[in-house]
Amino acid sequence: MIIIKIGGGREINLKGVAADLALLKEPFVIVHGANAARDELDEKLNKQKKVITSISGYSSVFSDEDTIDLMMMAYAGLKNKRIVELLQQAGVNAVGLSGLDGKMIEGKRNTGIKVREEGKTKIVRDFSGKPKKINMPLLNLLLQNGYIPVLSVPIIDENNFAINSENDDIVALLQSELKADKIIQLIEAPGFLADKNNPDSVVKNISQKELEALENQVDGRMKRKILALRKLFEAGPTTVFIYDGRAEHPVIDALNEKGTKVE
Amino acid sequence: MIIIKIGGGREINLKGVAADLALLKEPFVIVHGANAARDELDEKLNKQKKVITSISGYSSVFSDEDTIDLMMMAYAGLKNKRIVELLQQAGVNAVGLSGLDGKMIEGKRNTGIKVREEGKTKIVRDFSGKPKKINMPLLNLLLQNGYIPVLSVPIIDENNFAINSENDDIVALLQSELKADKIIQLIEAPGFLADKNNPDSVVKNISQKELEALENQVDGRMKRKILALRKLFEAGPTTVFIYDGRAEHPVIDALNEKGTKVE
Repeated sequence: MIIIKIGGGREINLKGVAADLALLKEPFVIVHGANAARDELDEKLNKQKKVITSISGYSSVFSDEDTIDLMMMAYAGLKNKRIVELLQQAGVNAVGLSGLDGKMIEGKRNTGIKVREEGKTKIVRDFSGKPKKINMPLLNLLLQNGYIPVLSVPIIDENNFAINSENDDIVALLQSELKADKIIQLIEAPGFLADKNNPDSVVKNISQKELEALENQVDGRMKRKILALRKLFEAGPTTVFIYDGRAEHPVIDALNEKGTKVE
Repeated sequence: MIIIKIGGGREINLKGVAADLALLKEPFVIVHGANAARDELDEKLNKQKKVITSISGYSSVFSDEDTIDLMMMAYAGLKNKRIVELLQQAGVNAVGLSGLDGKMIEGKRNTGIKVREEGKTKIVRDFSGKPKKINMPLLNLLLQNGYIPVLSVPIIDENNFAINSENDDIVALLQSELKADKIIQLIEAPGFLADKNNPDSVVKNISQKELEALENQVDGRMKRKILALRKLFEAGPTTVFIYDGRAEHPVIDALNEKGTKVE
């Protein structure tokens, strides 16, 4: 079993990804992003991304109903269906599902964030949360019948509302169930970079031990990335391949260790 | 078996539809539109619907790649997932699929339209076509495992490209396979109107014989509607209920013959 996480960048070579995936001998499950498509649509619709700041000073995107609409359009609609189309053209019988469909990905909605507004402290609650459960019977039903699941947000919360969620958390949850021996992450960089501004600084090999050490050395976005990587090993041994989704053969090259290998 | 066709109008009471559907004892399959959502998005994105006129004088919408993008966003994305969400909230384990997913609805792309451009006759071909085949093993797999399929365009053509198609043709094709004893069509009118401008002109009962006679009396949009109705009977006897999707109980009322019954 292989889990493929396709980043949502504009330059990901989806046609190349689809062609490569058609050559895989093992079954696989795809989780994809759509940031670029979402941002582009957002801009065209003249919507401003809402950012709120908690009283503890932490800033985050506020996912209101409009945000979920946008997510349904960009992730579950445009990107999911274009990926399914490319896979079908490559000979892979893909089925695209959001987390809502058959409750494929159930989550728990965040309880809310304390904010200060007009001199008053109040709690605001958006449509976001953490994935908690994969519908394994449905996932297996598809896989056993030759269908490749292509998953995207939104996911469904405990009251059956659509909520936003992090793809890293979805992949980690999937891995806790599937225990895939390989996880491929396709991004818009040649691998895990020691210096994010230097594409020549690809770290070729990272061990789990090194991940722990790295986590204590860095912060911000980098810390979250490393934490997400560490979570993938909680379900047991696996190998994570991080590689450039813009390459001609993103998946084949990733498996041939052209990017970063974490194990 | 019941087939539910939900119109794509803005005022359809989807929450009421979902609540009613949760009460049905029989299995059902949904096909939905999203015209209003598509047009709204279209307008916001400042795209002009492209209309072409053939040399024989017939005008039709030209579905280019942008049109398919829009369709993926409005139909397979926004509308499909909001319907799935409402069904899940009502306790129906819905799975939303476009015709691309698992090749649920395969079609044949239109060959092209002869147009006159700058004094020359040329053939233009868009991404549209006719549905030809339903993936019945996948549809049955879902139904047999307790999932309710919620289907939308785009569908997939013979070369695995996403194409636009008429929902009436999809419903007729579904009926040729499912032979549902009931077909419910929810629209933004209280039933089949003798005079489209008079909501009090609902025709309560129409027989198949009357459909044939009507088809010869009318033309344009009305003729196409009647032809679509007639096609539903080609697979054998059924009852078609046409009713107001804006009602409080669209499905229950439709089955209670509050609108038009065709049989």
